[in-house]
Amino acid sequence: MIVTVTPNPALDVTYTLDRLDVGGVHHVDEPAVRAGGKGLNVARVIHQVDVAVTAIATVGGPAGDEFRRELESSGVPHHLVPSTAATRRSTTIVDRATGSATVLNEHGEQRAATEWNALEESVRASLGQSDCVTASGSLPPGTPAGFYARIVTIAHEAGLPAVIDTRGPELIAAAHAGADIVKPNRAELEQSTGLRDPLAGARMLIDAGARLVLVSLGEDGMLAVPAEGPALRARLPKPLTGNPTGAGDAAVAAAAMCLAEGIIDAETVLRRATALSAAAVLCPVAGEVDPGYGEFNAQLLLDQVS
Amino acid sequence: MIVTVTPNPALDVTYTLDRLDVGGVHHVDEPAVRAGGKGLNVARVIHQVDVAVTAIATVGGPAGDEFRRELESSGVPHHLVPSTAATRRSTTIVDRATGSATVLNEHGEQRAATEWNALEESVRASLGQSDCVTASGSLPPGTPAGFYARIVTIAHEAGLPAVIDTRGPELIAAAHAGADIVKPNRAELEQSTGLRDPLAGARMLIDAGARLVLVSLGEDGMLAVPAEGPALRARLPKPLTGNPTGAGDAAVAAAAMCLAEGIIDAETVLRRATALSAAAVLCPVAGEVDPGYGEFNAQLLLDQVS
Repeated sequence: MIVTVTPNPALDVTYTLDRLDVGGVHHVDEPAVRAGGKGLNVARVIHQVDVAVTAIATVGGPAGDEFRRELESSGVPHHLVPSTAATRRSTTIVDRATGSATVLNEHGEQRAATEWNALEESVRASLGQSDCVTASGSLPPGTPAGFYARIVTIAHEAGLPAVIDTRGPELIAAAHAGADIVKPNRAELEQSTGLRDPLAGARMLIDAGARLVLVSLGEDGMLAVPAEGPALRARLPKPLTGNPTGAGDAAVAAAAMCLAEGIIDAETVLRRATALSAAAVLCPVAGEVDPGYGEFNAQLLLDQVS
Repeated sequence: MIVTVTPNPALDVTYTLDRLDVGGVHHVDEPAVRAGGKGLNVARVIHQVDVAVTAIATVGGPAGDEFRRELESSGVPHHLVPSTAATRRSTTIVDRATGSATVLNEHGEQRAATEWNALEESVRASLGQSDCVTASGSLPPGTPAGFYARIVTIAHEAGLPAVIDTRGPELIAAAHAGADIVKPNRAELEQSTGLRDPLAGARMLIDAGARLVLVSLGEDGMLAVPAEGPALRARLPKPLTGNPTGAGDAAVAAAAMCLAEGIIDAETVLRRATALSAAAVLCPVAGEVDPGYGEFNAQLLLDQVS
């Protein structure tokens, strides 16, 4: 069983308009509402491909009630930790005319120290039947430093591998804690390390202590930099058009399923993460993958980049 | 006491951004959340100037819970009628750089016939201690025709005057039912009557049966067309800059307070409605008025337009 941890989940609210007119008044249909946040997308993908998963997240306030209801109806197994902080909303406005998606992500409300402890305890309590832990996404303002590093340590103390998808100092700290896989995208890696070159940025995380760095490169595919052995890049023969939101989360899902099976070789992890990521691009909603991901794996072009 | 009826209230959610970038991802602060809808704004203005008021509205669903909480903390007396239909949201995105406000108004969910009956019963039950009834705003899809006309009839059966602020066939039907005051703005009047000239449009509503028509003309002030006597226009010597949202609701509040005091002469109603409307423009939030509205009344220029 894989545990996904989402410390700052969001209620995803999507409005679809014929055309977004800045400064205008729009009469709109009821929005689509979903329990979201990167870790929830990871859990949905794992659940879709019939691997056992539990999504752990904090919830609170009115959006938290909607979050809980939607997650219950989705069938994704979950454990929700109550919080006095209201669950944030992430509002997306899709313009049918241009295809643009305008996103307003609330930061999320500050949590009490006791609530962070309760979340960590829930993770610890779930590890008895687990094979791998993933933790993903932003953190609310005022979060004590090192949350993701502690998740790595908690997993390792239970003898389990950990996949971390975050950015900034939390990414660096997770690498220092010995995260088995970290998965920034190119922009997050540059922002976190100050290095423009993804290979150089990934090597900095390996030197810090990460065992494998996956860097999603958008249309250019994905880079895998292991602690030992050559760096590899995988890509499709032709870039896909579709919805890139959630593609990184599908890569984390694939990486976690590899680790849960005991697979750690960079090429297999890279292949599966790139294929599942491509299959997510074909789906209009984050957290879903096209069932044809096996074919993407067969089509992948692999280069050794060092 | 004045009763305000809001058949399709909304939870008003306002995000304020440095700059709205269509197609971009924005990290935003928690939004301001308020119990809204035109009738709620009318009630807030009446409450602010220390006149007794009760706001009647339907509420349901998760946004309805937030609506109820905010209204309770506002101190505005209210009676909320539970509905199986979820209260809609109205989301406004304010761009600090340009001052633009982009608005997404959900239509609202359809109500069962029994829920319309329950709302009408609540209005009837409130009339014992009332001096005037107002009803404002849009109606959800699938509403049986003639809701606003029935509110006029219910008020008249109790011997009370009614002020109606709506548009389209519902506005025409309210005039036919003999509404004491109707208050469309220029665009709503044109849309409802098909007549470009506000004076001609207002006369059509008088011919239908309304006793007094107030037409808000934005920077050009306000037009009052009574069943008997000349039409009048009031305006400020210089247009105001500010927030026009809620200015029409302040005009309805002033009109209702006149009727509640037994004042029906067109000039007094026009003066008070125009002054309170101008005082609303000076406030950044709909449902609030600047305390200096008496000075606006003293400055008003009045023209006879027929």
